[in-house]
Amino acid sequence: MRVVGIDPGLRNLGWGVIDVQGVRITHVANGICTSDGKADLASRLLSLHTQLSSVFATYAPDSAAVEQTFVNKDGAGTLKLGQARGVAMLVPAQAGLDVGEYSPNKVKKTVVGVGHADKGQVAHMVKMQLPGVVLAGPDAADALAIAICHAHHAQSAGHLAKAVKQAEKRVAM
Amino acid sequence: MRVVGIDPGLRNLGWGVIDVQGVRITHVANGICTSDGKADLASRLLSLHTQLSSVFATYAPDSAAVEQTFVNKDGAGTLKLGQARGVAMLVPAQAGLDVGEYSPNKVKKTVVGVGHADKGQVAHMVKMQLPGVVLAGPDAADALAIAICHAHHAQSAGHLAKAVKQAEKRVAM
Repeated sequence: MRVVGIDPGLRNLGWGVIDVQGVRITHVANGICTSDGKADLASRLLSLHTQLSSVFATYAPDSAAVEQTFVNKDGAGTLKLGQARGVAMLVPAQAGLDVGEYSPNKVKKTVVGVGHADKGQVAHMVKMQLPGVVLAGPDAADALAIAICHAHHAQSAGHLAKAVKQAEKRVAM
Repeated sequence: MRVVGIDPGLRNLGWGVIDVQGVRITHVANGICTSDGKADLASRLLSLHTQLSSVFATYAPDSAAVEQTFVNKDGAGTLKLGQARGVAMLVPAQAGLDVGEYSPNKVKKTVVGVGHADKGQVAHMVKMQLPGVVLAGPDAADALAIAICHAHHAQSAGHLAKAVKQAEKRVAM
């Protein structure tokens, strides 16, 4: 069962792929899709879509999760992030996957044990749980944390069983 | 020269296509892409992407413009709209088009003559400028207004000439 986590952002969009077998999780790959801050918005979104679609084509995840965006008072920043997040949600939907959504606090609480952990703690716990992993950067560490969180919660909720069935159906088609 | 205008929204995404020959503009088509408010976000974005891509496949516009989003204090609303706008910007970029962006005030000022016109005035002026048009709804009227605004400003700025060259290049390829 392969899970991809996505940490959306317009400049840096982190992604991380893990394999889940029962309670055992292993690292597959992680990275960061980037877009040129000097390019126009449409080109940046297209570039992110192309890069993320290529990740999905390469690693063929069975299930996906995207971090819920923290809405703050910076409306322009929220709008930018929202546009990148639209692309981040679209790619797994185009691949026929359900998309889990988790708040940053839920991700931290699951992976680190507390809701207000800093980025360093998240990266540390991701490394502990995925021995030998080389992180492409903080956004990739966050993405792996989202994937771990999804594996944990989806398993309890039986969502992964559903995703496995969907995957089997796709293979059978 | 064919121009598509897009008024982004998660529930209702308006689109309008016009043909431009010098100062003469004619209506081609207009409509509204909708998404089911009860469906999950990823499915809604996928549905909008599929519908809008189909509009592009059917009418093959040479140039596109999307309304700039008004950022307000409702962060959750801004985020929703941002995600829909991400898809609205992605589709023309995937079709190889540059995407113009205009603020609602600029659109109104161009089409109605004043920046604070209401929706009824916009629809009225769109009907005046595109005789015989049947509007699919207020969002489609806004989208046609965006297309008219783009035709007007891009012409002055020579952007349409560039778009025509791009179109010729695509045909030649």
